[in-house]
Amino acid sequence: MSSMWGNIVKISIFGESHGNCVGVVIDGLEPGLKIDFEKLNLLLSRRKPGGKLTTPRKEDDEFQIMSGVKNGIVTGAPLSALTYNKNFNDKDYEELEKVARPSHSDYPAYIKFKGYNDLSGGGHFSARLTAPLVFAGGIAMQYLERKGIKVFSHIYSVGGIKDKPFESTETEKYYDILKDKTLKVLDDKAGADMLECIEKVQKEGDSVGGIVECAVTGLEVGIGNPIFGNLESVISSIIFAVPAVKGIEFGAGFSIADMKGSEANDLYIIKDGKIKTSSNNNGGILGGLSDGMPLILRTAFKPTPSIFKKQKSVDMVNLKESELLIKGRHDPCVALRGSVCIEAAVALAVYDSIRSL
Amino acid sequence: MSSMWGNIVKISIFGESHGNCVGVVIDGLEPGLKIDFEKLNLLLSRRKPGGKLTTPRKEDDEFQIMSGVKNGIVTGAPLSALTYNKNFNDKDYEELEKVARPSHSDYPAYIKFKGYNDLSGGGHFSARLTAPLVFAGGIAMQYLERKGIKVFSHIYSVGGIKDKPFESTETEKYYDILKDKTLKVLDDKAGADMLECIEKVQKEGDSVGGIVECAVTGLEVGIGNPIFGNLESVISSIIFAVPAVKGIEFGAGFSIADMKGSEANDLYIIKDGKIKTSSNNNGGILGGLSDGMPLILRTAFKPTPSIFKKQKSVDMVNLKESELLIKGRHDPCVALRGSVCIEAAVALAVYDSIRSL
Amino acid sequence: MSSMWGNIVKISIFGESHGNCVGVVIDGLEPGLKIDFEKLNLLLSRRKPGGKLTTPRKEDDEFQIMSGVKNGIVTGAPLSALTYNKNFNDKDYEELEKVARPSHSDYPAYIKFKGYNDLSGGGHFSARLTAPLVFAGGIAMQYLERKGIKVFSHIYSVGGIKDKPFESTETEKYYDILKDKTLKVLDDKAGADMLECIEKVQKEGDSVGGIVECAVTGLEVGIGNPIFGNLESVISSIIFAVPAVKGIEFGAGFSIADMKGSEANDLYIIKDGKIKTSSNNNGGILGGLSDGMPLILRTAFKPTPSIFKKQKSVDMVNLKESELLIKGRHDPCVALRGSVCIEAAVALAVYDSIRSL
Amino acid sequence: MSSMWGNIVKISIFGESHGNCVGVVIDGLEPGLKIDFEKLNLLLSRRKPGGKLTTPRKEDDEFQIMSGVKNGIVTGAPLSALTYNKNFNDKDYEELEKVARPSHSDYPAYIKFKGYNDLSGGGHFSARLTAPLVFAGGIAMQYLERKGIKVFSHIYSVGGIKDKPFESTETEKYYDILKDKTLKVLDDKAGADMLECIEKVQKEGDSVGGIVECAVTGLEVGIGNPIFGNLESVISSIIFAVPAVKGIEFGAGFSIADMKGSEANDLYIIKDGKIKTSSNNNGGILGGLSDGMPLILRTAFKPTPSIFKKQKSVDMVNLKESELLIKGRHDPCVALRGSVCIEAAVALAVYDSIRSL
Repeated sequence: MSSMWGNIVKISIFGESHGNCVGVVIDGLEPGLKIDFEKLNLLLSRRKPGGKLTTPRKEDDEFQIMSGVKNGIVTGAPLSALTYNKNFNDKDYEELEKVARPSHSDYPAYIKFKGYNDLSGGGHFSARLTAPLVFAGGIAMQYLERKGIKVFSHIYSVGGIKDKPFESTETEKYYDILKDKTLKVLDDKAGADMLECIEKVQKEGDSVGGIVECAVTGLEVGIGNPIFGNLESVISSIIFAVPAVKGIEFGAGFSIADMKGSEANDLYIIKDGKIKTSSNNNGGILGGLSDGMPLILRTAFKPTPSIFKKQKSVDMVNLKESELLIKGRHDPCVALRGSVCIEAAVALAVYDSIRSL
Repeated sequence: MSSMWGNIVKISIFGESHGNCVGVVIDGLEPGLKIDFEKLNLLLSRRKPGGKLTTPRKEDDEFQIMSGVKNGIVTGAPLSALTYNKNFNDKDYEELEKVARPSHSDYPAYIKFKGYNDLSGGGHFSARLTAPLVFAGGIAMQYLERKGIKVFSHIYSVGGIKDKPFESTETEKYYDILKDKTLKVLDDKAGADMLECIEKVQKEGDSVGGIVECAVTGLEVGIGNPIFGNLESVISSIIFAVPAVKGIEFGAGFSIADMKGSEANDLYIIKDGKIKTSSNNNGGILGGLSDGMPLILRTAFKPTPSIFKKQKSVDMVNLKESELLIKGRHDPCVALRGSVCIEAAVALAVYDSIRSL
Repeated sequence: MSSMWGNIVKISIFGESHGNCVGVVIDGLEPGLKIDFEKLNLLLSRRKPGGKLTTPRKEDDEFQIMSGVKNGIVTGAPLSALTYNKNFNDKDYEELEKVARPSHSDYPAYIKFKGYNDLSGGGHFSARLTAPLVFAGGIAMQYLERKGIKVFSHIYSVGGIKDKPFESTETEKYYDILKDKTLKVLDDKAGADMLECIEKVQKEGDSVGGIVECAVTGLEVGIGNPIFGNLESVISSIIFAVPAVKGIEFGAGFSIADMKGSEANDLYIIKDGKIKTSSNNNGGILGGLSDGMPLILRTAFKPTPSIFKKQKSVDMVNLKESELLIKGRHDPCVALRGSVCIEAAVALAVYDSIRSL
Repeated sequence: MSSMWGNIVKISIFGESHGNCVGVVIDGLEPGLKIDFEKLNLLLSRRKPGGKLTTPRKEDDEFQIMSGVKNGIVTGAPLSALTYNKNFNDKDYEELEKVARPSHSDYPAYIKFKGYNDLSGGGHFSARLTAPLVFAGGIAMQYLERKGIKVFSHIYSVGGIKDKPFESTETEKYYDILKDKTLKVLDDKAGADMLECIEKVQKEGDSVGGIVECAVTGLEVGIGNPIFGNLESVISSIIFAVPAVKGIEFGAGFSIADMKGSEANDLYIIKDGKIKTSSNNNGGILGGLSDGMPLILRTAFKPTPSIFKKQKSVDMVNLKESELLIKGRHDPCVALRGSVCIEAAVALAVYDSIRSL
């Protein structure tokens, strides 16, 4: 598996944080989509660092199309695109070459790749690699939109401060509400509190985690498969490619474990001539298949492991205890930028599942 | 994908709840393993219904080896095995053919398969299909044990009643503690409360959810891959094949979202000459790779959707509202039997990841 | 890969020559096909040994459906089927356990599987494993027939005696001509000569090779993919699963290497309002895609390696030269029974390519 | 499938003949290989057009490494590389947009991609796409060489003029003989005749086909798999990605069909303490596994379909008969440059098979 994913719509992600570029090949796209580049760049800009509360590293995420598009239209041949790396500072990582950054991939990657891997900025493990993921997901989203399917998300919590959750049976309305917001929250007061919390930890040289809630609306019934090709598996198989994600739950998720069947069961009703359910604790997925209700999931982001406090660690080359102080530029809360990555990953999973019917 | 899974160790699961049999083909096993059938059957018996608090349907889970084993030893050719279905009662399902059982796959499966699917007992969507999964996982476990890797789990919660969590840095000790227990809990008092809770909901004709916590110890450092082949994705891609699972989290999981980086980061130390971490909030996985700490994950099971209360539903063939009363035999808490399924799924994911290096 | 194959329609083949059974799981079939079992068994009977010029081993190729079919109709869940092994004589192989049979898999399989593989009758390498392939291919053929696509073949040559080749632009007519023939040849005189040749080598305790020519008619234009998903690759990737095949060629095949471009090029014409070509040296495939002309291919079968003459060989366990005299029952010309295997393999490749669009 | 291939070592090929670039991502390489770029470029130069008897289009096949290499050493992250397209002349194709070039992909590609595909120079179907294949194969070859495995080929025939075939039991000696030759033939007289033949057809505005014979020496015993993962299938699955290939045969290939078993069988002997065979009609592959003998295969190349004679064709947009005269620059015999593509493809197939053990 490694850095390729997909069944019919396959993607191959390449590049390193401080290497030449990061990029993606998307294989299996249907020909004929006129790509809305403005929309795509808007999506990419949500991932791009540089905001007040994101890393000041200016990543120029303008992707160059290398193949698969002619006159702005997808040809059906593999679509490849890349963006060159600029504005990074390898000096920030010089001292780190030997001392593993806590809660980063440095140490296991050093063992796996026998010391040959590119450690600067995390190399191929860097969150920079979500740029090609968002690019590919943005293309998938445009395909989905042609079918009336919308993928969107909000910041459900930051450091314990919670936004209002999606109302799970009538979810599509949030698309318009969230569309133009810079900070994707339903409750602006909660959003302000989140920002305050982030600023505070940032000043302390610390970071904080968060939860992203994502919805897919407009899905027809029966997408997915039994057993391994179930929608939850397919979505999870790509979601954890977003660094810092440590959990995923669908519908009522972990809280469903505390319920009784009579509370948890989503009862069928007929609404506007269609079969719907009166609640949506299953998050739109039954038996691994879409059931016609909004698909709802939440993912937990750990706090950015790169903090600006002295931390104990080990010199993994010489096998001795050490300390390190991380430099460079790092978001205090990756969940903020993570939301667009989740949307992209979910869009790819849903689009591939639809194409694999 | 559908009902096949794996990279080097591939499995193909087939069968229906009330069909001829359920079975599995396992392709890519290393030749030479002498299968410990007693151990394997012990594992299968944990999944097998029939206990006081599980469905009284007597599933004879004695698998017949159909190929790939000679004189009790794995040959390296595809290992196939199946167990015939007996002791089921199709009459229990006759009335259900048209009225979709809430929170089951009936309705989306009916749409996906255009009405041709076998609905009895859920057909190919049935939890009965976890029998071949546990069989295959049991084989994987025996391979892992040869490498000193142990996979085990406990019932972390039932209906809100919590067992003690695994201590996440020193986890291997629980293997022996749990090995011979019928009810896999660390705190027997909590276990007794869980059973009481289950009995209570059972009497009410209801069901209850639960959480299973699973650990893998003895993993070497560097198993897994960056981006899509990461251990979390590979594990999730098979875990959701276990029916009723609605969430998965690794290490501190969703609670990590509320932490600061300075709390969440697992600091490196040297212990007995090896690089370890002083905490294990990442659950043994960094950058998608095993980091030498115990791999810890939790999965949320929804309450069994088959309850014995009259429920509102719809006749999906004639598109009109209806009611149904489920008959048959169903566990009041699938999480109990689910724990061995989680172990099996995790063992397969870990074994395939090791083989794919 | 090993013993699983396919993109959307995936098959998993299991079993050994002298084991319990041989069987197959077919995953990804569209629901709703009413299987014509008579037709399927007729196809299987073409592969079945027992004829005058085939091995006298009576293989009962009556497959039992284990899952995926309800009331004779494909449900969409994995279709699994198997046939038990009977009428084999392990004593025939006892002496062979150590001495590798020339031109069989014995020696490399012994090394690959470290001596753990089942050698009797070739184990998982046996031509007996084409029974599940033909079963699966027969299902694929019935799907193709619903789309007006026919797959058929004839014995193009045996021991140098040649049948008339397919006329490659108007090929569909041969379907009816060949349908009811026991010996699939266009020129019955050539067929009689082939049989005479085979009888002669059989009396000598020898065997002889042959070539099978196969056609697919009714294919729409544009099936297949550029680069690796091309039709020739997909077909070849399954054809060599038929034991004894040592070569495959499409259209004019190897003879095209001697042509000039002006001879080889298939010029476009318009015929009955459709784009066709005036010749078909490319065998219906251009750039890896079907071009609307009959798909034509030929495969070379080596002579059955099991001959009844004393042969030099080596004791692979004790690494010393030896001799062996093969017993048992073996076809003098596997190409005869091979033709239906080629049809089955081609049908699967074409059906999967159509499903993967 | 489409433009991705491989099991453990996966490649993703992208680009178009007259687009921005052509390139490749190689996923699953072992870290630590110091790439010999001189050797790699030498290999690429064999594919590069520009020689007297190849197209005068000057393709600058200098690949830029985009990721996966640090200080000239493979890191283990996906290795991506591309080469920009220059020196093409789109005007040569303007007239062709509607009139399908005979024996090219134009017409079926137009149908498959609904007219959205890039037709210039064949777009993604162009032989230009073999540049990234040779790049990837060159990397694979360097890995194989570290294991003592050599992959090499010669031009076995051109327009019916035949070189001496490889002596199939003692084949490694040809590696040194061929290494420094510009025209890869064993018999220089035959080589001179081939060149004369090619010059003659070139003057006529015509082209000619050819056969490439390829060998792999130094393979250990037991590489490959039974059934679908057999070496012949794996090799074929990538060989037909080389445009113009219409057939492949292993060992004695099609001529084995005319043999008796007693002639065809490769008898085992012990030689220098190792098990070998006295002949090699099976081309080093038995039961899909390497048997310790040289792996030998031949592939048939059709004559370049682009000839400079007026040809009948059809206007595929307006569905009427037409004529066309191809301009541009095209090899009179693609087999010459094809030989290095075959080596590259075979090297990838063998390397992936070794890695997938």
